[in-house]
Amino acid sequence: MRDAFTYPNAAEQFRRAANVIPSGVYGHLGPVEGCFIPVDAFPLFSSRAKGTYFWDIDGHRFIDYMCAFGPNILGYGDPDVEEAAAKQRERGDCTTAPSLTMIDFAELLVETVASADWAFFAKNGNDVTTLAVMAARAFTHRKKIVFFKGYYHGVGAWTQKIDYAGIMEEDVQNNICIDWNDVTAVERVFAENPGGIAAIIAQPYMHGNFMDNELPADGFWKKVRKLCTDNGALLIVDDVRAGFRLDLAGSDHYFGFEADLICFCKAIANGYNVSALCGKDFLKNTISSMSYTGSYWMSAVPFAAGIACIEKMKKLDCPKLLIDKGAKLARELTKAATDYGFNLRVSGVPSLFYLRLADDPSLMLHQEWIAECVRRGVFFTNHHNHFINAALTDADIAETVDIARDAFEIIRERHPGK
Amino acid sequence: MRDAFTYPNAAEQFRRAANVIPSGVYGHLGPVEGCFIPVDAFPLFSSRAKGTYFWDIDGHRFIDYMCAFGPNILGYGDPDVEEAAAKQRERGDCTTAPSLTMIDFAELLVETVASADWAFFAKNGNDVTTLAVMAARAFTHRKKIVFFKGYYHGVGAWTQKIDYAGIMEEDVQNNICIDWNDVTAVERVFAENPGGIAAIIAQPYMHGNFMDNELPADGFWKKVRKLCTDNGALLIVDDVRAGFRLDLAGSDHYFGFEADLICFCKAIANGYNVSALCGKDFLKNTISSMSYTGSYWMSAVPFAAGIACIEKMKKLDCPKLLIDKGAKLARELTKAATDYGFNLRVSGVPSLFYLRLADDPSLMLHQEWIAECVRRGVFFTNHHNHFINAALTDADIAETVDIARDAFEIIRERHPGK
Repeated sequence: MRDAFTYPNAAEQFRRAANVIPSGVYGHLGPVEGCFIPVDAFPLFSSRAKGTYFWDIDGHRFIDYMCAFGPNILGYGDPDVEEAAAKQRERGDCTTAPSLTMIDFAELLVETVASADWAFFAKNGNDVTTLAVMAARAFTHRKKIVFFKGYYHGVGAWTQKIDYAGIMEEDVQNNICIDWNDVTAVERVFAENPGGIAAIIAQPYMHGNFMDNELPADGFWKKVRKLCTDNGALLIVDDVRAGFRLDLAGSDHYFGFEADLICFCKAIANGYNVSALCGKDFLKNTISSMSYTGSYWMSAVPFAAGIACIEKMKKLDCPKLLIDKGAKLARELTKAATDYGFNLRVSGVPSLFYLRLADDPSLMLHQEWIAECVRRGVFFTNHHNHFINAALTDADIAETVDIARDAFEIIRERHPGK
Repeated sequence: MRDAFTYPNAAEQFRRAANVIPSGVYGHLGPVEGCFIPVDAFPLFSSRAKGTYFWDIDGHRFIDYMCAFGPNILGYGDPDVEEAAAKQRERGDCTTAPSLTMIDFAELLVETVASADWAFFAKNGNDVTTLAVMAARAFTHRKKIVFFKGYYHGVGAWTQKIDYAGIMEEDVQNNICIDWNDVTAVERVFAENPGGIAAIIAQPYMHGNFMDNELPADGFWKKVRKLCTDNGALLIVDDVRAGFRLDLAGSDHYFGFEADLICFCKAIANGYNVSALCGKDFLKNTISSMSYTGSYWMSAVPFAAGIACIEKMKKLDCPKLLIDKGAKLARELTKAATDYGFNLRVSGVPSLFYLRLADDPSLMLHQEWIAECVRRGVFFTNHHNHFINAALTDADIAETVDIARDAFEIIRERHPGK
């Protein structure tokens, strides 16, 4: 049985952070949205990262299953990506005129992504989901957008909830929210809003937080695709989180349909800062007609990194590799749970698996188990899907399962009756 | 008289770009929003950049007065910034937990910027102007936002115009737009909307496009600041473009007032991809209460670059240096114009000067002069302010003025009567 980590430096530095940064560490990397429960089980800061590991500021190494919440797909500091980035950096990055690397990257995406006739680059997932929705409104001259419950499409006011701080009714009054996998509801909203729906926006499967992740039901996407086409609405796929972990040709391709617009970010350049909206030819002029740009959007280094990342992912057949690794880990974790009398549910596609200990509806047992894993060097988090990267080895998986067993043993002793 | 450049490679590559990218090159780096008139005078692509120069793909060197539209403040590839970025890159960039470098950068901003009690980091100027407006609504529980005509605060739907593609009435119906420097109008909108105005958002002076830039009138900011305070509305300064080129303590400090929220981007890290919202202590909990994050927002390399950039700007007394260089250039360009019988208006703060040949209200003569400068290696653009960087030397200024004289001579010969 390994000893539990403690984090005295993290506690001290968090106080320093909280003095000059709202929430200390905000957003998904922070204690609140990152679901670090209890906070004292989590390292909070990193001192360095390499391959599938990061090291915290208290001297502990973690096998990292969050992968910077997605961007790390080849391993931190991947040598091929770093070499390509360094070469471009010598020439120039953020300059007055863009580099030809931008064109090379757009051509590679068009060649790689099935539903891409063009690519438009920005910086955040939110930049491109927002552009997609604005483009749908510009193209259709309609206002309403259909979402699926459990969605996350970024932090733009249009995709937040009315009870969130700073959000007005005007921001969200054209949003319609229906249940995932409910074709009847899709039919109903089209019937109830004739000529009113600009687009459906959806993740390729339901990989929401605080819920078992749910794949599309048989025939779901085919029917949704047809309903959009028949009703003159666009189908927007938000592949920010799942992109390149299911299929390099796009997660719509993985599920056998074609989006009109598809949004990429996270895994597109192994952590270099770029996002992309790709789409069908008939929407290219609409995008051209819009006012949409940003200070660093044509910086060349992330494009060079993105090219190297996608080429290496192709060479590795990366999605299959990650799905196989994730499936192996899921099998062994599930078996470990069973050995200690627990029921571990693993849902979603294995390259971005979601975990839930199903023995306790309050989720507290789950949080205790996650905490004991983290305290021994396996960086999981609560109530959010995890991510596999290509640098994860069988030895890392074996070590993960050993630590997970330690954690199961601890919570079994603590809760003999569950 | 220098020969005019031609750009056969750029023309060919632009066709390639237009095949896979909407508009070929979009936004402010592209022919349309970049105001490249006539397009064939401009190089369109860069092959490398160093110091105050970039080189295009047809083998020409340009003295660059757009500075990547702002980010280049110390010179492309500044050795101190690059060294700091490289050191951090060895340790880690976009990782699952943030680095302590984030805290160091926040502390440095709080120490440097007069109105900053805290800092919140994102990626684009638009991310932080949007957060500022949402925070004002969250804090005041009011909806209306006051803008000054000629504003640009990014590409969020809330700050676009109703006739722009994809924009709905709901997006902009709470916007009130008044004239710059019109205190009476500020008083009037507060009187007409009692308890309704969440914030005034403004650039520190009017550096809009297609107009001579206009400094604040005597007492303007003092009165606006008082009206905001008296009416319980926030004062948001959008320092994305002017930030660190007027005063390292913030452009509000330069003009003798304090913002409640101030937005930085562009020059904050010499081209590394980061933006910041800074603000007053009473708003820190409001920011904490909001849902706002993005994939790469806590990447460490841009923070390290930002620290090195701000420290070097302090050492150089950068705003004064840039203002002096800009003033010298403005004086010599104005004299050159006079020598050829033209009236060149230079407006705005000299570190981000705006140019207009005032002899022709159609602006076509201005565009011809700019084009002849660009074709000889001085990268100006039409109808947008320019930017000075610290690597610009007296020799560069002398070369710029020589080329500007060539360009004046050409248009004088072409239009003897103007």
